[in-house]
Amino acid sequence: MKLPHTVTLVDVGPRDGLQNEKQPVATEHKARLVSLLQDAGLKEIEVTSFVSPKWVPQMGDNTAVMAAIERRAGVRYSVLTPNMKGLESALPTKPDEIVVFAAASEAFSQKNINCSIAESIERFAPVVEMAHAAGLKVRGALSCAMGCPYEGDISADQVERVVLLMKDIGVDHMGVADTIGVGTPRKVQAAMERALKHYPLAEVSGHFHDTYGQALSNIYACLELGIHTFDASVAGLGGCPYAKGATGNVATEDVVFLLNGLGIETGIDLDKLVDAGAFISEVLGRPPVSRVARALLAKRQA
Amino acid sequence: MKLPHTVTLVDVGPRDGLQNEKQPVATEHKARLVSLLQDAGLKEIEVTSFVSPKWVPQMGDNTAVMAAIERRAGVRYSVLTPNMKGLESALPTKPDEIVVFAAASEAFSQKNINCSIAESIERFAPVVEMAHAAGLKVRGALSCAMGCPYEGDISADQVERVVLLMKDIGVDHMGVADTIGVGTPRKVQAAMERALKHYPLAEVSGHFHDTYGQALSNIYACLELGIHTFDASVAGLGGCPYAKGATGNVATEDVVFLLNGLGIETGIDLDKLVDAGAFISEVLGRPPVSRVARALLAKRQA
Repeated sequence: MKLPHTVTLVDVGPRDGLQNEKQPVATEHKARLVSLLQDAGLKEIEVTSFVSPKWVPQMGDNTAVMAAIERRAGVRYSVLTPNMKGLESALPTKPDEIVVFAAASEAFSQKNINCSIAESIERFAPVVEMAHAAGLKVRGALSCAMGCPYEGDISADQVERVVLLMKDIGVDHMGVADTIGVGTPRKVQAAMERALKHYPLAEVSGHFHDTYGQALSNIYACLELGIHTFDASVAGLGGCPYAKGATGNVATEDVVFLLNGLGIETGIDLDKLVDAGAFISEVLGRPPVSRVARALLAKRQA
Repeated sequence: MKLPHTVTLVDVGPRDGLQNEKQPVATEHKARLVSLLQDAGLKEIEVTSFVSPKWVPQMGDNTAVMAAIERRAGVRYSVLTPNMKGLESALPTKPDEIVVFAAASEAFSQKNINCSIAESIERFAPVVEMAHAAGLKVRGALSCAMGCPYEGDISADQVERVVLLMKDIGVDHMGVADTIGVGTPRKVQAAMERALKHYPLAEVSGHFHDTYGQALSNIYACLELGIHTFDASVAGLGGCPYAKGATGNVATEDVVFLLNGLGIETGIDLDKLVDAGAFISEVLGRPPVSRVARALLAKRQA
């Protein structure tokens, strides 16, 4: 089985990583994190989200963050937009891409956003339309694709149904997300294959949480299918609200170590990436969750 | 690619896991850990080592531990024996198997045991002979098979050379160990294929450290080769002396979660395994390193 030659990593640390942080992180520190990620070679960064500050106070400085980041040629900046209002606020900040979302689980959709999956996607239709009119690419984030905290197991059929609904409203890219980290390689491959029935290889990505330590084997399983775009979060930023004390997003450092070992190009300098993670970890006052970061930082001190 | 239907896990927590613990662990707690592992369904347990208590004070109660464990039918108990003196001390305690070892790295062998790889294996020849005469199986542990803290990268050729030397002295089983946790799937497969040239599938096993978070993807890569025996350490017990603060052996809980997800039988009850890990973690006064254990313990408290 041939693996891809190159992989694109989307660092979602500034958005998905920081959004669950209770302590406020200063706008300048968020902008600095984006700079350091760029220094490390990241070419896609999910910067912030335009949700109501009532829901996610941490992202209340979204416009300020977008103004503060130092934009570089060749780097793409995305923002999460939960609705039309979010998009309208996001547009003047000039993102390259927006992210819309839906759950693969009906129970999660109801509990999380008070409507059915179909309704939630329908509401995104005008958002996608306006984003396209503004020349922006639309990434879809399909959460709970392997399992749901309320419903338990999620089938590949359930995943495919939502993939089709998202495709119907014109979503350009399908990010399949194991929000609660319960997926394992063969289950992940089955879900990914459903996304690949409707989207080309370059427009399907994996988003894994390391709550149960399975993220890297799931990424490896995706590589075996040729998938070559993955979300990851520097330092492993991001908790999972359903498993207190457990880890959240897979750490970008850990993914880069895997890809380096497989001889797959990422354009990312692992040492500089560890620097970026060390910076934000110091801001947060705790060590990175990334095992690679911990091991390499310990080596530097040795 | 078809994966194995069943996998045997060897819990090395009581030996490889505890040996680097600075704080002394009471003999009764070690014996209790073995009991709990049996309760959870483990059928192979590496109980202790017969090294000089000057080197590893934690294992100084080896004979007492072997006397204290409650032996059950169908469970195999192994001990590490570094030399003839160790084997002579081990034999009266009636282990089922002994473990002998060598490094794939010449530099590591010299620094660690002051002799060449070939010399170290030659010294094990009478140990293997006497163990066989006593009806014991001999497992070989091939350390530093993916990389060495002194030498860096280790090639598959280097691995195969040591596999052959071990086979020459009659070692029955080849455990290929990524001692410093730097392996990634394709490199691991290349090393494993060399072991499989000289040993049958049932007599090759993988031993992975999670220092860089790569262990589960490496195990998945081994499963793709049909390998169906792995070492693991409950709660992720075991540090790596070369990466302070970094994690050591892959946690048995994490491996079981992976195998359960893949539909592979292990005979292990994950909840009871988490109990075993929680017990020893309480004895050590710190939470388990295992991500699965952390997530499941947090869920129990929720």
